[in-house]
Amino acid sequence: MVENPEILPHSIILWRSMTHWIGGMGILVFTLILLPKIGIGAYQIFKAESPGPVAGKIEPKMTDTAKKLYIIYIVITVILFLLLLIGDMTPFDAIVHTFGVVGTGGFSSKQKSIGHYSSSGPYIPIIMGIFMIICGTNFTLHNYLYKGKIKNIVNDEEFRAYYTIIFGSIALIALDLFINNYGGIAKSLLDSFFTVTSISSTSGFVTADFDLWPSFSKYILFLLMFIGSSAGSTSGGMKVIRIVVIFKLIKREIKRILHPHAVVPIRINGGVLSEEIVSGIYAFTAVYMIITLVSAAVVSLSGVDFLSSISSVLTMLSNVGPAFGAVGPTRNFFFFAPFYKLMFCVLMLLGRLEFFTLIALFSIFTKKKSPVTN
Amino acid sequence: MVENPEILPHSIILWRSMTHWIGGMGILVFTLILLPKIGIGAYQIFKAESPGPVAGKIEPKMTDTAKKLYIIYIVITVILFLLLLIGDMTPFDAIVHTFGVVGTGGFSSKQKSIGHYSSSGPYIPIIMGIFMIICGTNFTLHNYLYKGKIKNIVNDEEFRAYYTIIFGSIALIALDLFINNYGGIAKSLLDSFFTVTSISSTSGFVTADFDLWPSFSKYILFLLMFIGSSAGSTSGGMKVIRIVVIFKLIKREIKRILHPHAVVPIRINGGVLSEEIVSGIYAFTAVYMIITLVSAAVVSLSGVDFLSSISSVLTMLSNVGPAFGAVGPTRNFFFFAPFYKLMFCVLMLLGRLEFFTLIALFSIFTKKKSPVTN
Repeated sequence: MVENPEILPHSIILWRSMTHWIGGMGILVFTLILLPKIGIGAYQIFKAESPGPVAGKIEPKMTDTAKKLYIIYIVITVILFLLLLIGDMTPFDAIVHTFGVVGTGGFSSKQKSIGHYSSSGPYIPIIMGIFMIICGTNFTLHNYLYKGKIKNIVNDEEFRAYYTIIFGSIALIALDLFINNYGGIAKSLLDSFFTVTSISSTSGFVTADFDLWPSFSKYILFLLMFIGSSAGSTSGGMKVIRIVVIFKLIKREIKRILHPHAVVPIRINGGVLSEEIVSGIYAFTAVYMIITLVSAAVVSLSGVDFLSSISSVLTMLSNVGPAFGAVGPTRNFFFFAPFYKLMFCVLMLLGRLEFFTLIALFSIFTKKKSPVTN
Repeated sequence: MVENPEILPHSIILWRSMTHWIGGMGILVFTLILLPKIGIGAYQIFKAESPGPVAGKIEPKMTDTAKKLYIIYIVITVILFLLLLIGDMTPFDAIVHTFGVVGTGGFSSKQKSIGHYSSSGPYIPIIMGIFMIICGTNFTLHNYLYKGKIKNIVNDEEFRAYYTIIFGSIALIALDLFINNYGGIAKSLLDSFFTVTSISSTSGFVTADFDLWPSFSKYILFLLMFIGSSAGSTSGGMKVIRIVVIFKLIKREIKRILHPHAVVPIRINGGVLSEEIVSGIYAFTAVYMIITLVSAAVVSLSGVDFLSSISSVLTMLSNVGPAFGAVGPTRNFFFFAPFYKLMFCVLMLLGRLEFFTLIALFSIFTKKKSPVTN
């Protein structure tokens, strides 16, 4: 981003990074505890009573669960802070970047973002990349880790898909960069690793101007912006679990064609998803696509090109930060007229609160007969 | 397209246009008669026994229906041929363009496509535009017209959505062109009308290099490439009826949130769609999106930019012809390496045969227990 945080007062920088951290914790409690409790968890992929990684295995007592989430969140924060200190960051910079990573927010205290550090060695980008992956993982799985239930983690379907997507993308982009004379294999791998983890966790830190990368690498990053990370993490995007369900839905359709009378339920981690939930998931992905496509049409009225229109909308919906073209990693959104900025704010909220949740919450506040009583 | 049909022998030009016409008739008989009869109509949106515009109201006897379709198809062909003759086309050019319009194929006998005629007056582009809309309409509706059942036509949900999309797009693009000093309102309207009808009917004739148009206009054309025209027409694309069902699906999800215990079926023209069919439609649109996004990643390996990658894939899947950027209306696909051309051929077939139909047909030919016996 072009604006220079280095000339701003420390208090402002600390404050805006703190909003990442508080917001990250807020969204965890909101999606993992509050929504299932008030009966609108279905629109969050899983109902409280259905099996699955989000709400199925968490403890019955709300305060207990919240406490555990807080502890996990704080432990991750402290470990990262210490690791960044070890990497020779000043305490101020370490706390700012820790907040930005753990809340997958992405604001830095440096004008060149993590490019400021990556030039002097791979330690900081590697540590931050690893923690962005961790914070893009469903926090219920961190709870399993704490309890030693490693098997539950490695067998989790979203976890496996998420890591396959991340490490597959890192390998493909590193190869593409290397072939296109971006630098040695180490530099290609490091920049690919950091950029993929940053985009897929929807953080938005940058070490390199990926808008200058070859078409294929940019394209993979574009797809990662759509997908985002895991449900029940601090990240945005469509969430890996929904992509997994969509693929299963297609697989079921093929099975139905081959065996017309077969009843084929869709399972996640062994449990059957109700048709209502499946229908909710595809309505969600359809809304995501439609809002992206229609909003990009509106943004194109500003005169920016196709990729800038569609990627600026996507970076808002998925809460990433940088996009491509006119709004690439070395640019910002300053030049847009106020109307577009207002629209971007609405898109960020819609994406963060996942459309249907917003409607559900709205319906609770406007109706006398609340779903809480169900 | 850059290749010059004017220097090729008439026989070759006539032959390639004839493939449009025969192919158009083939796809009508295939989707409106053959598929429902062999029991895989479900993957074509409607089952033979369900209400709806495609297979519901056609006569029980296969040969009768086929005969009627042939008559409608030939009548449309003859009328257009005569109208083009009246417009001072040579008989050869008239027959070539008639075949291209009726089969929504889009090959012309002129290097500048319809730009050759539009410079000398609006008659030919207007006539061709109107007939491209007609041939993008479900042919079952033409049968209603023949029987005088006008009410059935104007109440048809796909018909209404299709005409709303077309005339809405024409108005928006004409306005965008006019505001951006493209020319007078008449020229803006005419070029918008012709281009919208050509792209949405997936014909691909051109009168203007729309790749030079403002971002917003290009973006609307891009969306039209996705949508295509009506089911049961000679056009490609996702088909308007599927978009209608997806919007109803989203509407249902919102209703379910507001009234958690309501059972909300999805209706088309008054009839309820089974959940199996809704799921099939959703799977189809998901496959369409996924194939587009993944294939575009492969095309980006050739080094073309984002818009060229994604629009070249889309123009193949939807059987349009021209796309944007490196494959815009004044360019062609010549520069792609053989691998990509092969991929494009596969995409054209996949799009034309609508993925699941292909699987269904394949399963019939490879299995002893055929769905025909159901």
